[in-house]
Amino acid sequence: MVASAAVPDPENPRTGDPVFDLHVGGKMEVRSTVTVAGRDDLSMAYTPGVARVCQAIADDPALADDYTWVPNVVAVVTDGTAVLGLGDIGPRAAMPVMEGKAVLFKQFAGVDAVPICLDTTDTDEIVETVARLAPSFGGINLEDISAPRCFEIEQRLKERLDIPVFHDDQHGTAVVVLAALENALKLTGRRMESARVVISGAGAAGVAVARILLAAGVRDLAVVDRQGVLNSARDDLTPVKLSLAQDTADTTGREGRLVDALAGADVFVGVSGGSVPEEAVAMMAPDAIIFGLANPNPEVHPDIANRHARVVATGRSDYPNQINNVLAFPGIFRGAFDVRASAITEGMKLAAADALAALVGDELSEDYVIPSPFDPRVGPAVAAAVAEAARRDKVARR
Amino acid sequence: MVASAAVPDPENPRTGDPVFDLHVGGKMEVRSTVTVAGRDDLSMAYTPGVARVCQAIADDPALADDYTWVPNVVAVVTDGTAVLGLGDIGPRAAMPVMEGKAVLFKQFAGVDAVPICLDTTDTDEIVETVARLAPSFGGINLEDISAPRCFEIEQRLKERLDIPVFHDDQHGTAVVVLAALENALKLTGRRMESARVVISGAGAAGVAVARILLAAGVRDLAVVDRQGVLNSARDDLTPVKLSLAQDTADTTGREGRLVDALAGADVFVGVSGGSVPEEAVAMMAPDAIIFGLANPNPEVHPDIANRHARVVATGRSDYPNQINNVLAFPGIFRGAFDVRASAITEGMKLAAADALAALVGDELSEDYVIPSPFDPRVGPAVAAAVAEAARRDKVARR
Repeated sequence: MVASAAVPDPENPRTGDPVFDLHVGGKMEVRSTVTVAGRDDLSMAYTPGVARVCQAIADDPALADDYTWVPNVVAVVTDGTAVLGLGDIGPRAAMPVMEGKAVLFKQFAGVDAVPICLDTTDTDEIVETVARLAPSFGGINLEDISAPRCFEIEQRLKERLDIPVFHDDQHGTAVVVLAALENALKLTGRRMESARVVISGAGAAGVAVARILLAAGVRDLAVVDRQGVLNSARDDLTPVKLSLAQDTADTTGREGRLVDALAGADVFVGVSGGSVPEEAVAMMAPDAIIFGLANPNPEVHPDIANRHARVVATGRSDYPNQINNVLAFPGIFRGAFDVRASAITEGMKLAAADALAALVGDELSEDYVIPSPFDPRVGPAVAAAVAEAARRDKVARR
Repeated sequence: MVASAAVPDPENPRTGDPVFDLHVGGKMEVRSTVTVAGRDDLSMAYTPGVARVCQAIADDPALADDYTWVPNVVAVVTDGTAVLGLGDIGPRAAMPVMEGKAVLFKQFAGVDAVPICLDTTDTDEIVETVARLAPSFGGINLEDISAPRCFEIEQRLKERLDIPVFHDDQHGTAVVVLAALENALKLTGRRMESARVVISGAGAAGVAVARILLAAGVRDLAVVDRQGVLNSARDDLTPVKLSLAQDTADTTGREGRLVDALAGADVFVGVSGGSVPEEAVAMMAPDAIIFGLANPNPEVHPDIANRHARVVATGRSDYPNQINNVLAFPGIFRGAFDVRASAITEGMKLAAADALAALVGDELSEDYVIPSPFDPRVGPAVAAAVAEAARRDKVARR
């Protein structure tokens, strides 16, 4: 009735810029799903009637799933320390990304999402704060929290809460990469078990991609950071990197720099934001697979990658095979919420990737290893697969 | 697309109960205010376009007011310790009330509200948690937090944050009581300065009603709790009650029990939930004013009150003169948000009460001392008065 969208100053140089114009007043709102047109409505939706619903939930907490919005709401939680390629821009400046995420959650899977931008970067404080918020939400989507804090924060919250906790920068990326790789390997006649894979980047995405590829069967995997291949011979590794080294290059003896690892490799996955010289790309195996996911500048530009590889994917929408998290996170939470899952398991992530890969089906080609985010089958297919996996993994509560 | 409202079991005995049926799946949702129909939209509302908006806010934090939803969003925060008349039912069972509040915020003033039910009752933890959430919200509405913790929590958050912090059980009630009392005094030819007022109840609402009446000019005020009139002679008072005693009965020497205080009193305001014997009511001054606000059972039943008083108000919708917080909180936050107020001042609360009282105008009668919550003038009138007072009190930022 008297809502007032913020109107920028006419002198504002941003006025007329379509991106800024789109953002005026933000991108989301809260809406009522019930009508309160008169005293009778008010006495049911609010006092005194609502007291009976509260009392019923107090007597049987499981009824909160039936009579509140909680089981359909995810908190999109950030501390603003690793926002897109911008880095540590703080919680206030992170909000447009979190609102965008909320918009996509709703559009692609009917999930209600609330952005929570935290005024702390302390691991303990973030864990405590999110744990205290938990009764308000059906799930927690961690977002744009820098490594290595993101690993500990997610792990501790998963242990503490009985609702899904999911760091999308890790696992959303990992699920979509795995889906695209499944199809790329199929197209080039390879198997997970025998492919030689190199990942550039050992931050949130790199670690999660490595972990899901190991879970999917990859055996020859080298993860490379700025100092080279992660292996136990190095003395500069964080606990997370050391553990990853033991499960990857330590088992194959790979070492050296990125260019050394790339020689003869079948697959390159870039999640580092760096740039790979063409000479190194040229030394990969025939029919190579190159995913350069940095945005807006892929680690290997598609024009260069296409000279040396058979399948090329990026994070960009203006090239084929866009690896976009929006293919995963809405359907994953939808599926988890539909069965009131208490967690998101490895099995649920693998199932999401398989479902995404399967949607490509017989149309599989070099330029189509992953569906479009706007393919309307994506959300429901991922949700169904995730829900089924939740039941299989015994984390479903309905 | 695949949203699934919770469907209660057909065996659920609550099915068919209109209050429970209304609550299935909760009462609210999040909606996008922008269209994401294809890759171009996606690249503006989300990556890569959104990065420019984030960077602009990082460079000039004030732009968050223009390009995010934050300045229109209030967090409705509770710990579930004092929910309606139900008491300490916990954060999960409190959610239906908070959702109801959110529905009313939107309907009556276009304010987006997000329920935050906290899994802690510790004062320090609540303060810390809410302070860490602050970048996500334009204001904080504290709700159903038990006394005396609610006083300290509100005070500390007000000192710490530069956005409005408002405990509705205190100040929403106080504003509406003051508005109704202004009109009731006018109708009975009295003035604030000379009226003898008794408040039964020294919890959140009682303390705030007392404070706003003192600010509005009341001089002869006695606040009564279960042990009797608050005065410094008592040795059982909390700091909040002691301070109130010094500013009320200490100045008039009133003492004794509720029945003693009521003898000859002009005004009774009940916010205790207790019951007042008819003999005590009968001893009030002629043309007495009785507000029995406990729900669903007023401290003085209207049928009894009407035998002895000229103006009777309750918290119930089925009697005249309903004292309902919904008359105040939506418009107060609307007005504060419209001018980006950094706080809600005493002046803004008094202005809200005056605006509410003024809407009754020439139609003032014994059965009409306060407007209906469904009077469409209420929200805009309160908002305009509050915004103007914010400017006067120098807390407006635009």
